[in-house]
Amino acid sequence: MNAPATTAQLIPEFHPREVPAVLIEALKARFGERCSTALVVREQHGRDESSFTVPPPAAVVFAESTDDVAQAVRLAAAHAVPVIPFGVGSSLEGHLLAVQGGISIDVSRMNKVLAINAEDLTVTVQPGVTRKQLNDEIKSTGLFFPIDPGADASLGGMAATRASGTNAVRYGTMRENVLALEVVTAQGEAIRTGTRAKKSSAGYDLTRLFVGSEGTLGVITEVTLKIYPLPEAVSAAICSFPSIEAAVRSVIQTVQLGVPIARVELIDANTVRMVNAYAKLGLREEPMLLMEFHGSPAGVKEQAETVQEIAAEFGGNAFEWASTPEERTRLWTARHNAYFAAVQSRPGCKVISTDTCVPISRLADCLLDSVAEADASGIPYFLVGHVGDGNFHFGYLLDPNLPEERAKAEQLNHALVARALRLEGTCTGEHGVGLHKMGFLVDETGAGAVEMMRTIKRALDPQNIMNPGKIFSL
Amino acid sequence: MNAPATTAQLIPEFHPREVPAVLIEALKARFGERCSTALVVREQHGRDESSFTVPPPAAVVFAESTDDVAQAVRLAAAHAVPVIPFGVGSSLEGHLLAVQGGISIDVSRMNKVLAINAEDLTVTVQPGVTRKQLNDEIKSTGLFFPIDPGADASLGGMAATRASGTNAVRYGTMRENVLALEVVTAQGEAIRTGTRAKKSSAGYDLTRLFVGSEGTLGVITEVTLKIYPLPEAVSAAICSFPSIEAAVRSVIQTVQLGVPIARVELIDANTVRMVNAYAKLGLREEPMLLMEFHGSPAGVKEQAETVQEIAAEFGGNAFEWASTPEERTRLWTARHNAYFAAVQSRPGCKVISTDTCVPISRLADCLLDSVAEADASGIPYFLVGHVGDGNFHFGYLLDPNLPEERAKAEQLNHALVARALRLEGTCTGEHGVGLHKMGFLVDETGAGAVEMMRTIKRALDPQNIMNPGKIFSL
Repeated sequence: MNAPATTAQLIPEFHPREVPAVLIEALKARFGERCSTALVVREQHGRDESSFTVPPPAAVVFAESTDDVAQAVRLAAAHAVPVIPFGVGSSLEGHLLAVQGGISIDVSRMNKVLAINAEDLTVTVQPGVTRKQLNDEIKSTGLFFPIDPGADASLGGMAATRASGTNAVRYGTMRENVLALEVVTAQGEAIRTGTRAKKSSAGYDLTRLFVGSEGTLGVITEVTLKIYPLPEAVSAAICSFPSIEAAVRSVIQTVQLGVPIARVELIDANTVRMVNAYAKLGLREEPMLLMEFHGSPAGVKEQAETVQEIAAEFGGNAFEWASTPEERTRLWTARHNAYFAAVQSRPGCKVISTDTCVPISRLADCLLDSVAEADASGIPYFLVGHVGDGNFHFGYLLDPNLPEERAKAEQLNHALVARALRLEGTCTGEHGVGLHKMGFLVDETGAGAVEMMRTIKRALDPQNIMNPGKIFSL
Repeated sequence: MNAPATTAQLIPEFHPREVPAVLIEALKARFGERCSTALVVREQHGRDESSFTVPPPAAVVFAESTDDVAQAVRLAAAHAVPVIPFGVGSSLEGHLLAVQGGISIDVSRMNKVLAINAEDLTVTVQPGVTRKQLNDEIKSTGLFFPIDPGADASLGGMAATRASGTNAVRYGTMRENVLALEVVTAQGEAIRTGTRAKKSSAGYDLTRLFVGSEGTLGVITEVTLKIYPLPEAVSAAICSFPSIEAAVRSVIQTVQLGVPIARVELIDANTVRMVNAYAKLGLREEPMLLMEFHGSPAGVKEQAETVQEIAAEFGGNAFEWASTPEERTRLWTARHNAYFAAVQSRPGCKVISTDTCVPISRLADCLLDSVAEADASGIPYFLVGHVGDGNFHFGYLLDPNLPEERAKAEQLNHALVARALRLEGTCTGEHGVGLHKMGFLVDETGAGAVEMMRTIKRALDPQNIMNPGKIFSL
């Protein structure tokens, strides 16, 4: 409980509850060595990619089945002790921190692909299966799962945070791609939220209530997902633009013409400079779009030609496109290296990432003002965007020894979020609320909508044991 | 309250509450002539396309603004009187019947398109705007709204029932196409459930909680929707098959190859016979697929050629395709006439429609057994299916003077739903639960999931005034 003095300010819901010894004994009796209280294990389950620090959970249960999860939840519920689901720990906003104490339920051993229904384009997996593992296991079917948030996250975790990434412009996010879930409720009962039917009008959409609920309503124990045919042909393209606005205008027109672009990423000139320094790419140091097209061979050729014409209208130049895997990889090198190049540019730095998303017509406005602010702050940063969706990330590169930089970065993010909300956008496109955006959520949705979320939470989890202290204050 | 003796059996939640005169007075004081107690008006708002009959609501309020809706709800809430939203009255499952009395809130005068954001491919409309009106109003932008449930339904109603239709195989359902809502809660407060950002991870997905909630959680007062570029080219095709299974296998392979087919409808041989008799089309009296392709001119040609090759593999013949609007209309005549041809085949009949949806790999099994049962029953029927989604409708053609036919049709539907659920499907693909499928919902989702829906309902609407007695019993 000896958290740093700032924790209470950063984490309004920071008030760890006591975990009685009798609960730990009961968990050990039920789970044996699969219930660990070793400090190193607890610490590993008590931090994520966020910059918050709180004491670790009192114990970690390694669940191997839905029944394991249900029993762990029932034991915890009997003592009103919090339960925090853990996948691979790649969340960014403090989702898995034990801000009110409790136990961590690690589902990484629930890693079986339970069913591949190739004819229906669905799979059912346990929550600890990661997206790369899934794609390896279904490769022979000619199908793939497109959602790619960067990290090799667990699919349960991706559902819980409503993750997306570079392919979302064409394939949607976890919101569109989770067909059904099995979840263990706060009462320790397993329920199913849907069937394998592609659509349904049968009652409340519990599936989508749990997608994005960040573990606060239950533990996801099974995920049924849509999968897609591997495209017959894939091509990639890059193009430089005289301004961010010109790049964004190209994307708007591309989308409006109905070009089914699979990926379209923006990298700002600043980040291109970092990538050039890192990997000697010799790219024009201008805003750049990196694109990918999926379809038939004739289709991807047609798409690339259409986009090249559009780009030319907006002053795009150095347009290159490629259809072999090697050439595609070369073109996308800048995007793949952006993070590492940025970190290299300031050795020892810590990265804080923003996550706003706005309607695409507002994107250029939002970016230009935010870039100007970031430049004025003197904080080094990189900027990449899933620009087809209006979602982008500033990565502020902070010297961990200079707390004033962190404060400045928080100010920049505040200004950015406020701007995004004015432009009809959201404070988080894909990372989730966690601890960091609880205040922004109220700004975004209004008090009435957050109060409705609280009412649902209180009704489904009256003891407030499911990952408490996240998304909103109670 | 002089309902027929059978109502209580058909409608388990049939127990009208008293509407106090003081409420009617207050409504008249607030709304003047926009609050009607005329029997003809009440009766028009007290029935839908379902076959249930209950007494009409005590009054109808014609709302012209969100504030009107909020005030009507607050007045009703003060007397614990039910409130039932009304769009155009095209729902099929008794959604708008006043089974517990109350007042109807007619939103058909809230029919403004509030914003067209062509660059973002979004529109924001009032709930009384119908889908055809919307498409007329956005035609000049080169964009369209694809969801087509057949009826010219209101967009608020379509959101409330999670509607879909023939284009869903490519464009999704209301679940995928509603970006955000404004709703008036059971407390009479307006809240917003989302922003215009294309994606978001900001808290619980209240948008999708309301989509499909059939008016039981609140009244939808604004809808923000995705819209799409009108395809550069559209082509249509028809093809006959030796069996339903062969037709379904063709569709599975089409979808698995990633052909982005926009519509693919099945009509069974029986229905083709009816259409031939009605419109002298001279079609082969075999199961038939009707298809539509959207894309570039080269793209739709490629799609049609691919599908023709696949169809040939499965014995498909009489493949015809067409790209001019006139030719397309000719090819789709059979689908457009199916309902009328069926009704004509038994003059004076009443149609009862089923709505199961199964994973497409199970579709042939589900259809074949159900066709055999329907044939054995002697009840005339037609059969059409949104086969790319695994959703299909038997339309039983009943003589209203023969109650035993209705009983037989109910038996057929029971057997059909039970079969669909065994095959991992749903009791309702697009019509909703309403009154008719309350029992099936429990069979489908299990008691635990329905109990969770009830818990949410009780928490958000503690007086049970929002369209009570629908979806589940409380």
